[in-house]
Amino acid sequence: MSTPVQTLLPKVIDTAAFPAKPVQMEGVKDALIREVITGADGAPNFAMRIFDVAPGGHTPRHSHNYEHEIYVLAGAGEMHTAEGPRTFKAGDAIYVPANAEHQFRTVGGETLRFICLIPIAQNCAR
Amino acid sequence: MSTPVQTLLPKVIDTAAFPAKPVQMEGVKDALIREVITGADGAPNFAMRIFDVAPGGHTPRHSHNYEHEIYVLAGAGEMHTAEGPRTFKAGDAIYVPANAEHQFRTVGGETLRFICLIPIAQNCAR
Repeated sequence: MSTPVQTLLPKVIDTAAFPAKPVQMEGVKDALIREVITGADGAPNFAMRIFDVAPGGHTPRHSHNYEHEIYVLAGAGEMHTAEGPRTFKAGDAIYVPANAEHQFRTVGGETLRFICLIPIAQNCAR
Repeated sequence: MSTPVQTLLPKVIDTAAFPAKPVQMEGVKDALIREVITGADGAPNFAMRIFDVAPGGHTPRHSHNYEHEIYVLAGAGEMHTAEGPRTFKAGDAIYVPANAEHQFRTVGGETLRFICLIPIAQNCAR
């Protein structure tokens, strides 16, 4: 007899009610993270996190051996790249390839909110 | 001499200006897709697509051997699951595990817009 495979049900996550934690990395200023889909949900490939960066805040200037896939939900910002700054706004997607230097800073008075997906085996915010 | 590794630069994508294509799958009604980050960008692990489902429209009722990670940008909907419907709204994230039956229908008069990420090797909208 074969063992039946347990199929999990789809799950809806209210991100507005999801607990936010301060990002503790060196080089971060005034950023919160919500880890809304992770390995704990059974996700095998990638993790979905939502970041809130308060006006004047930023993420660290760094690079790492895995990519980011980002969607900007609110606010506006400037991305540091090895070839100079790039501006971005709500509704933009951003692809950060592995090993590319990057940093996100807020522009204007609104909180910058973005989704950032990474391979499940990585978590640069821990 | 070692060969230098080419590091690509981060890339900002204006999704509002990104071309949308009708989703051609059987069982789909009134849905558009924007494939904003794919293997063509060098993305090694996952693809980011944005779907617009017009009021009264829906995605196919199906299952497949890979997961979806979804973030709802606008509108509201009802998700079919093997254990009945689940409602969702803008600001919700949805995790659909591999092999879980699912379908998304609009609720209300607003276009349902969501981001849907899948492993790069898969593309259920083709």
